[in-house]
Amino acid sequence: MADTRTESDSFGPLEVPADKYWGAQTQRSIMNFPIGWEKQPVAIVRALGVIKQACAMQNKAQGDLDATLADAIIAAAAEVVAGKFDDNFPLVVWQTGSGTQSNMNANEVIANRAIETLGGVIGSKDPVHPNDHCNMGQSSNDTFPTAMHISTAMTAHQVLLPGLEKLHAALEAKVTAFDGIIKIGRTHTQDATPLTLSQEFGGYAHQVAMGIQRVKDALGRIYELAQGGTAVGTGLNTKHGWAEAVAAHMADITGLPFVTAPNKFEALAAHDAMVEMSGALKTVSASLFKIANDIRLLGSGPRCGLGELVLPENEPGSSIMPGKVNPTQCEALTQVCAHVMGNDAAVGFAGSQGHFELNVYKPMMAYNVLQSMQLLGDAASAFTDNLVVGLDADRVRIDKLMRESLMLVTALAPEIGYDNATKVAKTAHKNGTTLLEEAIALGFVDEETFNRVVRPENMIGPK
Amino acid sequence: MADTRTESDSFGPLEVPADKYWGAQTQRSIMNFPIGWEKQPVAIVRALGVIKQACAMQNKAQGDLDATLADAIIAAAAEVVAGKFDDNFPLVVWQTGSGTQSNMNANEVIANRAIETLGGVIGSKDPVHPNDHCNMGQSSNDTFPTAMHISTAMTAHQVLLPGLEKLHAALEAKVTAFDGIIKIGRTHTQDATPLTLSQEFGGYAHQVAMGIQRVKDALGRIYELAQGGTAVGTGLNTKHGWAEAVAAHMADITGLPFVTAPNKFEALAAHDAMVEMSGALKTVSASLFKIANDIRLLGSGPRCGLGELVLPENEPGSSIMPGKVNPTQCEALTQVCAHVMGNDAAVGFAGSQGHFELNVYKPMMAYNVLQSMQLLGDAASAFTDNLVVGLDADRVRIDKLMRESLMLVTALAPEIGYDNATKVAKTAHKNGTTLLEEAIALGFVDEETFNRVVRPENMIGPK
Amino acid sequence: MADTRTESDSFGPLEVPADKYWGAQTQRSIMNFPIGWEKQPVAIVRALGVIKQACAMQNKAQGDLDATLADAIIAAAAEVVAGKFDDNFPLVVWQTGSGTQSNMNANEVIANRAIETLGGVIGSKDPVHPNDHCNMGQSSNDTFPTAMHISTAMTAHQVLLPGLEKLHAALEAKVTAFDGIIKIGRTHTQDATPLTLSQEFGGYAHQVAMGIQRVKDALGRIYELAQGGTAVGTGLNTKHGWAEAVAAHMADITGLPFVTAPNKFEALAAHDAMVEMSGALKTVSASLFKIANDIRLLGSGPRCGLGELVLPENEPGSSIMPGKVNPTQCEALTQVCAHVMGNDAAVGFAGSQGHFELNVYKPMMAYNVLQSMQLLGDAASAFTDNLVVGLDADRVRIDKLMRESLMLVTALAPEIGYDNATKVAKTAHKNGTTLLEEAIALGFVDEETFNRVVRPENMIGPK
Amino acid sequence: MADTRTESDSFGPLEVPADKYWGAQTQRSIMNFPIGWEKQPVAIVRALGVIKQACAMQNKAQGDLDATLADAIIAAAAEVVAGKFDDNFPLVVWQTGSGTQSNMNANEVIANRAIETLGGVIGSKDPVHPNDHCNMGQSSNDTFPTAMHISTAMTAHQVLLPGLEKLHAALEAKVTAFDGIIKIGRTHTQDATPLTLSQEFGGYAHQVAMGIQRVKDALGRIYELAQGGTAVGTGLNTKHGWAEAVAAHMADITGLPFVTAPNKFEALAAHDAMVEMSGALKTVSASLFKIANDIRLLGSGPRCGLGELVLPENEPGSSIMPGKVNPTQCEALTQVCAHVMGNDAAVGFAGSQGHFELNVYKPMMAYNVLQSMQLLGDAASAFTDNLVVGLDADRVRIDKLMRESLMLVTALAPEIGYDNATKVAKTAHKNGTTLLEEAIALGFVDEETFNRVVRPENMIGPK
Repeated sequence: MADTRTESDSFGPLEVPADKYWGAQTQRSIMNFPIGWEKQPVAIVRALGVIKQACAMQNKAQGDLDATLADAIIAAAAEVVAGKFDDNFPLVVWQTGSGTQSNMNANEVIANRAIETLGGVIGSKDPVHPNDHCNMGQSSNDTFPTAMHISTAMTAHQVLLPGLEKLHAALEAKVTAFDGIIKIGRTHTQDATPLTLSQEFGGYAHQVAMGIQRVKDALGRIYELAQGGTAVGTGLNTKHGWAEAVAAHMADITGLPFVTAPNKFEALAAHDAMVEMSGALKTVSASLFKIANDIRLLGSGPRCGLGELVLPENEPGSSIMPGKVNPTQCEALTQVCAHVMGNDAAVGFAGSQGHFELNVYKPMMAYNVLQSMQLLGDAASAFTDNLVVGLDADRVRIDKLMRESLMLVTALAPEIGYDNATKVAKTAHKNGTTLLEEAIALGFVDEETFNRVVRPENMIGPK
Repeated sequence: MADTRTESDSFGPLEVPADKYWGAQTQRSIMNFPIGWEKQPVAIVRALGVIKQACAMQNKAQGDLDATLADAIIAAAAEVVAGKFDDNFPLVVWQTGSGTQSNMNANEVIANRAIETLGGVIGSKDPVHPNDHCNMGQSSNDTFPTAMHISTAMTAHQVLLPGLEKLHAALEAKVTAFDGIIKIGRTHTQDATPLTLSQEFGGYAHQVAMGIQRVKDALGRIYELAQGGTAVGTGLNTKHGWAEAVAAHMADITGLPFVTAPNKFEALAAHDAMVEMSGALKTVSASLFKIANDIRLLGSGPRCGLGELVLPENEPGSSIMPGKVNPTQCEALTQVCAHVMGNDAAVGFAGSQGHFELNVYKPMMAYNVLQSMQLLGDAASAFTDNLVVGLDADRVRIDKLMRESLMLVTALAPEIGYDNATKVAKTAHKNGTTLLEEAIALGFVDEETFNRVVRPENMIGPK
Repeated sequence: MADTRTESDSFGPLEVPADKYWGAQTQRSIMNFPIGWEKQPVAIVRALGVIKQACAMQNKAQGDLDATLADAIIAAAAEVVAGKFDDNFPLVVWQTGSGTQSNMNANEVIANRAIETLGGVIGSKDPVHPNDHCNMGQSSNDTFPTAMHISTAMTAHQVLLPGLEKLHAALEAKVTAFDGIIKIGRTHTQDATPLTLSQEFGGYAHQVAMGIQRVKDALGRIYELAQGGTAVGTGLNTKHGWAEAVAAHMADITGLPFVTAPNKFEALAAHDAMVEMSGALKTVSASLFKIANDIRLLGSGPRCGLGELVLPENEPGSSIMPGKVNPTQCEALTQVCAHVMGNDAAVGFAGSQGHFELNVYKPMMAYNVLQSMQLLGDAASAFTDNLVVGLDADRVRIDKLMRESLMLVTALAPEIGYDNATKVAKTAHKNGTTLLEEAIALGFVDEETFNRVVRPENMIGPK
Repeated sequence: MADTRTESDSFGPLEVPADKYWGAQTQRSIMNFPIGWEKQPVAIVRALGVIKQACAMQNKAQGDLDATLADAIIAAAAEVVAGKFDDNFPLVVWQTGSGTQSNMNANEVIANRAIETLGGVIGSKDPVHPNDHCNMGQSSNDTFPTAMHISTAMTAHQVLLPGLEKLHAALEAKVTAFDGIIKIGRTHTQDATPLTLSQEFGGYAHQVAMGIQRVKDALGRIYELAQGGTAVGTGLNTKHGWAEAVAAHMADITGLPFVTAPNKFEALAAHDAMVEMSGALKTVSASLFKIANDIRLLGSGPRCGLGELVLPENEPGSSIMPGKVNPTQCEALTQVCAHVMGNDAAVGFAGSQGHFELNVYKPMMAYNVLQSMQLLGDAASAFTDNLVVGLDADRVRIDKLMRESLMLVTALAPEIGYDNATKVAKTAHKNGTTLLEEAIALGFVDEETFNRVVRPENMIGPK
């Protein structure tokens, strides 16, 4: 640290970098928690800005905070929201479980920035005090969970849902494009009765559509904000109506339907809404994993695999095998999905570990949920752009495989009975012959009947 | 096996116990899968009965199944629903991943029972054939997922929701009973500002209320049934309208709002609705774990713990320590909650592993979700009856602890500023004195002001 | 309950079934914990018998327990070990987290049985008292963790390791049988350079061999027994040397190398050795999942899949598709593996949740580890018997696929450079031609060189 | 991008930043995988440097690589090892599952740096080609898993084990410092028989000692390296002895006992050794969680908790509650532990998902294991420095609580029987009296006997 200035808190003075706005508590946390490489996500930083802005607006409105100070705080907080001070939030995830030092980081940065704009001396806490003014009516215990919910909702709307919606649209486009392509179905990985490629992709599209719905459903309880509970949920040091009012300000600032949480004790001591959201993300992961895994298997080859789909070629696939191309987007997406499942396990565990009036796994839970959202949204988007959009069907191969299948015999079962149909299929399998040959040889049907009944185009829906 | 009879399938004849209704495929599965001690849950067996009954009703109605045979099948299936043949379902969970042999177990038992009532020879498949008649218009691939959803919905309504609702009512009764008991709050396990015991329990009650809501929300997609998709989702070998009609029959039989699934491809190849439900159960577990853990810590003692709650004494607690009593209901419940988290991890994993037109982790997913529901419902009920109902507060101790707390200083902060209030608390802590003594000694307030401001009864809500 | 007798404990008298040996505490647990359908595993019951037998032997030897009483207890405990009283252990897993009532169940059954053999009145606690005599020198807090370790070690040796060793031997037999069958390799599911089917199965065999080693390694700390720690780890109410002596008796009875745990505080308050073992079981699951999944994909078909392996046909595969055969053993095994991963998550969670001198998740941890072992052992055995042993290679198809592969070009890269080799492969892929044709057409090699260099039989090992 | 130069691969030319050494494949991966914020860990980058250095050494030694080129590659690779080019590795974790582009990133950076030192034109691939020279005898498929193992072993030795060893030493110091402090034991969170604080910390120290051993045990299979398997495990394009030789070079460079893996097929297609290591890390997490949780509960207060331990005060604990101090190091550590459990779930899942000759979850598995190690090592270290070292016992309070306990009655049980001892404890509990008073009043012992038998200092070990 070349240039420093002195800041202080109740533990005494401390040198901080002169070119940063943070104060003593932030610096102390840097010193006490040299753990890992994971910083508090930017989404949390911006959400803290939203909170400080909203609270100052309300504190000003109800006359508890001097208008000049309030306006300076509001302006500084707006800069945090705009991302101007992202590099003034150096703390890691692995700190106090209430996120207290990250809340103080926001208070300190905004206080010093407001002091600066008001012509004061940075670090003097005069005329703007990080606790008395920036944190007025607040506690880390309600502020940080509010930041968790705001950042989660914003990331859902800015990253996750757009990614899923893009993927959904691309899959629906394939449903249309692949209409009429009748292919072998596969159950237990084994040949089964036919369906269209369009139907197969329709299943994928439905999974993604439901995934979008699941995330939106889970957002319902994320929109409920802890702010106003203060230290233990009682709302000590706030006034009646304050919680409702600040939630309304936060809704205004973000354009999202935030409301005050109906029970602040629950909102501090538990994070069930985050656990619920994580469960929705896990469900989305299960869906996307299945889709990506199917596509790479259906596109396996080019000469020794199933070969029904032709995947876009995006990059050289091997450092040793010349000309190799791999389903790399499937791999990125399935890695993300497996990782999200792990995050979900961590979030569920942490969600159960609240003690009394506070759950102290807040930064870790936020980190996991936000990471899961970011990864799923980004990966769905990359998967769409670089794979789904350019996906083709190998119609010749699809048709060839389908026509060879022994499971077309299923159409005969209502005609000749399950047991006789079984004999036809088993004999054809043993002899390497066709169903038609064996059905006639076994005397169960004549050729005309067979050809009338065993028609793939009639096997892809109810009668 | 003392007495046997011969049954057969396409793999040949096989001896089965003479006093059982099952046939060759069931017997073959017993032989091929000697794995573990976990039988298919009874809820699955009963649900298969519902399905066979509903399908036969519809097959009769649309004229595809002879009325005499249909009525015999319907009657036999109703006996399965009523639990009369529970001991005719010997198969384990760890079988084929489509549950095919359990579906055939139902077909075989119902066929043989129907043959019996029609005066035929058991095992003859005449006049009722397990595949051609009992399984008419069905595949294991749509039947078993339908059984998964029906059994899940029924267990939710019969076990889980009643258990949670009982717990919720008991917690709400405590909210009323504990009104006005002001106690120390604890954040980070450390002394914090006060709240009422009623408020604390209000947080618990809210968690359980939301848990009930989460389960009900997740039931929405559980009510959607795969039946009608048959082998691969296309509905081959059914007629238009069949799927809707059988779902309506199933709704009638069970009294639950089942409908046909909007996308049968998704309904066979994925089990996202089960993953979603498991996520809800995981969230409920996180809530209940927190509540049970708090209660045992608040009731710790009798002489060397926190001692705020007095738990009912239900049994001797120790084989070596005479007179010991333990929070055993908390322990049963938290063990259940941790176990449910593990089940959820297994369900999420399995849900991602569908291949093409079928997910073949069906019995395992059903087993895990049904077990989670049963355990949570039962444990919530036992916890309520044997602990929550009889829970008492030690008002004397609660009051004593609360009045000693240094965190009452928080009420002074708006008056004298955060930094001065800190000095008061720290000095009192160091000297082992009271806040009042030090606040006056430090010259920040007079006694009258202190006593006006620092009033626990004014610290339990907004102004 | 038709016939009952009266038993009592410190909470008062209670009616118990007249035909059972258990007493009041067992009965009380039945009443207080009506949770779920999972009974304490038989392996735990037998292990409790081992413990009671060993402790009575030592108590007699050191003169603290009257020889007549001791002999009666030893004989009754031996009956428990032999499985004679399995139906006298009715308690569920979801009880007190110390397993106290299951320990008392053992004390009560053995006391009453010993009273009976000594001519006393069952239920009188005279001349054999469940606590004072059967539990002499013991606490549930050291007895139950000892039972956890003994049952784990015995299940490892009786079920898990035999299952894995059988599988390993069958895979090694395939390594020999498949020698010389050169096949296409697949990386990223896409065509890659060749290897032999023997090499592929050699990888599987190595995974299983290492899995056996991992389980054996983890057994090292399982052999360390908590017995002798009594209530909190201090060994109160035992004598010096007692812990070592009873461990030696347990080793004698079971034939396994049990020793006393080096730190009894850890042995009661944590179950790290169980978490470690669960981690080993999870690793085994990852291995077996991969093997089973590969085999079903390599055996996919019969006409529209990869078709390299021919799996034994064990049962009809479909209730609707006649003649269908499925890789059901792969499905049972992969379901087991996914389930074990969930169990592992539950065990890790529970292992972290000890408070002070005791972890109270004991029955749940034991249940999960024992279930995982039983399932993996049984499933590995069934998979071996019903699938691996009868597995065949389709040599014609394997050879055909391998010769079509473009990735044989890799052998050319050291000759003509990676970039030129890439051109050959890409051109052949685009034109649907052979590597030889394009390598010559592009002027990179002559036919003689190509045929000398691109030889699959030279591509399956270093030069 | 202000300044760029043109690089190319088989997909064509591409602009890359002029001030970076990477080439077209790295750039292509940046474009195709805009997913998340998690870069490949630096430990992986350095390990790739080790590999490239070792392979060039061996390629030179065996005469396959021109000495001048080899020396330039070795020098450039050594710079990567030294961390000089950390900022030339921009790729994220969520890329192709084989890590191919990260391997190519290393090849490209080293090739261009070598070209530069040899006076060539960066980007020309002349005279050093990234594939033909830097990747000689290698495939991403063996290189990346080798990098996984090397980075894991190095992080274990540089971060994790030092952190755990520091913690172990500090706990052992407390074992000594706390000798003779007799305290109440707690089981089920309830009062139990006494032990010393030294014994309690001895349990913690033993857990950490065993954790160190578990990590060391798991390193055994991590030391086995995949290098030499090349594309599919066969070692195509290497010579006999190459694998052993490069492993020896890697051992020399790192000072760690690396050897070549006994089975290369397993080493590419599975990552069981990583799953095993993750299981060990999960076990360590369970241990550390328990220790940290105990310490915060034993240190709860300052006035309304258990208050047996006095934790160092490191920072202001609350933004609203003046003077509050919290067990923040416990919170950071328990958050880390819960997170590691999630990582472990992800690693186990991913480890099971290999297909055929390759597991394509490599970057994600490496990221999770490396993160778990870094976090556990860092958090253990911070926890030691900022909490354990400064931990104090409140001897007065410990003694007071211990003497009030009713569980001292356990010492009476061998004297007066379990049932009578129970009466003493229950009566004293009911009446709020002492054990002595009630033992005499009930007529079970005289005062002299009581005082001889009930002596805490005799209750902390066997007789």
